Amino acid sequence: MFSAKAHYGLKAIIYLAKNTGKGPIQAKEIAVTQSVPVRYLELLLSQLKKARLINSNRGKLGGYYLSKPGSAISIFDVVSSLEGKISFVSSHEVKENDAIETTVTGFWKKAEDDLIGYLQQTNIEELLQKANTGEQMYYI
Amino acid sequence: MFSAKAHYGLKAIIYLAKNTGKGPIQAKEIAVTQSVPVRYLELLLSQLKKARLINSNRGKLGGYYLSKPGSAISIFDVVSSLEGKISFVSSHEVKENDAIETTVTGFWKKAEDDLIGYLQQTNIEELLQKANTGEQMYYI
Repeated sequence: MFSAKAHYGLKAIIYLAKNTGKGPIQAKEIAVTQSVPVRYLELLLSQLKKARLINSNRGKLGGYYLSKPGSAISIFDVVSSLEGKISFVSSHEVKENDAIETTVTGFWKKAEDDLIGYLQQTNIEELLQKANTGEQMYYI
Repeated sequence: MFSAKAHYGLKAIIYLAKNTGKGPIQAKEIAVTQSVPVRYLELLLSQLKKARLINSNRGKLGGYYLSKPGSAISIFDVVSSLEGKISFVSSHEVKENDAIETTVTGFWKKAEDDLIGYLQQTNIEELLQKANTGEQMYYI
């Protein structure tokens, strides 16, 4: 349904949330820890930056960091900045009085609204907490 | 998220449900009423037939018909026969003890399960009833 962009972009931004307070994080560090090729990651980071979810500093000590708290960034913000408009089927002409077309379009619209709601109701901080809890479980 | 196949395949099969009891329906009739090119429609019909959701007769009076009641065909049956496995992100290697990867994969899995549940809980007969109700509304 989504491309790998949504998956790796989400991993990258959770990693930045995890390292909040440690100064800018280099793309290379994100790439290595999150198992994503650095060139591909840089494309994702530039899209997240364009959407103003993250910021960057240049130079030797430069890197990336969240532009606001993780609790203020929903998964919807991240996914829509990487994947564009979320829709179940591409739009097409709807003939007036075409009851089957109207019904099927309404059926997809409900699935779309449910998915968007799910993406909106969860934020980066919540996924980070979940990952932290999981991490503790590994080491118990 | 889905291709046009899911949309037009669903319209075609609802049209067949609507015409249950009228004998086999020609592809041309479905194509014209559902505004879909006949060659493309024939591809969808062959996939639906392969999945044993519809049947066909050859010859001059041949055509397509549902192979079971519309109430026994879920939207999931139709969509998965046309689009294959439903998954939010392509599968990839998961490193052991990678808490962020595990969390993000779990997040997609929940979205996937919710969508599959939604597609499974609705059947063709229900969408047909909805379309019929809509049709009556147009003509009131």
